[in-house]
Amino acid sequence: MLGKTYPGQDCSAARALEIVGERWTLLILRDAMFRGYVRYSQFTESLGIATNILARRLEGLVAAGLMEIRTPMSRSDHVEYHLTRKGLDLKPVIVALTQWGDAWLGPGPVTFRDAATGAEVSLGFQTADGRAPEVGAVVARRRTPPTI
Amino acid sequence: MLGKTYPGQDCSAARALEIVGERWTLLILRDAMFRGYVRYSQFTESLGIATNILARRLEGLVAAGLMEIRTPMSRSDHVEYHLTRKGLDLKPVIVALTQWGDAWLGPGPVTFRDAATGAEVSLGFQTADGRAPEVGAVVARRRTPPTI
Repeated sequence: MLGKTYPGQDCSAARALEIVGERWTLLILRDAMFRGYVRYSQFTESLGIATNILARRLEGLVAAGLMEIRTPMSRSDHVEYHLTRKGLDLKPVIVALTQWGDAWLGPGPVTFRDAATGAEVSLGFQTADGRAPEVGAVVARRRTPPTI
Repeated sequence: MLGKTYPGQDCSAARALEIVGERWTLLILRDAMFRGYVRYSQFTESLGIATNILARRLEGLVAAGLMEIRTPMSRSDHVEYHLTRKGLDLKPVIVALTQWGDAWLGPGPVTFRDAATGAEVSLGFQTADGRAPEVGAVVARRRTPPTI
């Protein structure tokens, strides 16, 4: 079996990828976030992936707390996979990938909007005082240890 | 060989993942973006991955135009892998994964800063008129076809 962990990587991005880095996982989340899909059959139809892989990915997402299983009262023979807040919070990752694809591979079929107002939404860097640094200006710095 | 494309997915995120979705690729980009690594030996040491996999990933990044090979004048026996603008523009993907990891898996070792001012930088949703919609309010809408 292919490894999916990144041992020795003290890095939040690496740990996030241990959960969502496997093939198909982010597209399952995309379908759940932006298409409202909750049923196995919806994901199968959208993604066209082997059922054993889809089952394993959904199981992984539930185990990691990104999705939860619900059984609708009206259809007790069905299970649904609903995003948790933890799963929903990955929305910026999908949007970041989409924006990059739009910019560098050609515009895709969707834009992102504020549901309340319809205004176009983008994802960008910002500082607490409201500036928007260029991508090249954003650097990583070791977190200052808390003073005790 | 494991497939890496997502045929039938008319989606910029899926197309982006065809390029950066393979295991290790985003961590190589992280090292290039935030640690300034350019040499094969730096990536090997940082990631601890098999040399054939690293070679294949770097080759893929060069082929996709995310990195370019340079030979430093002083060391003509060395090659270096430098991010292109296309590669650098994936920074928000790494930051989005990091922010999610920090929030949901526990704080990691780094924060992001504006190199010019040292101000902490975050990645967030914003509208053209300066509002910051909640993650749940951001929806995907089919792009309006251009009127001719």
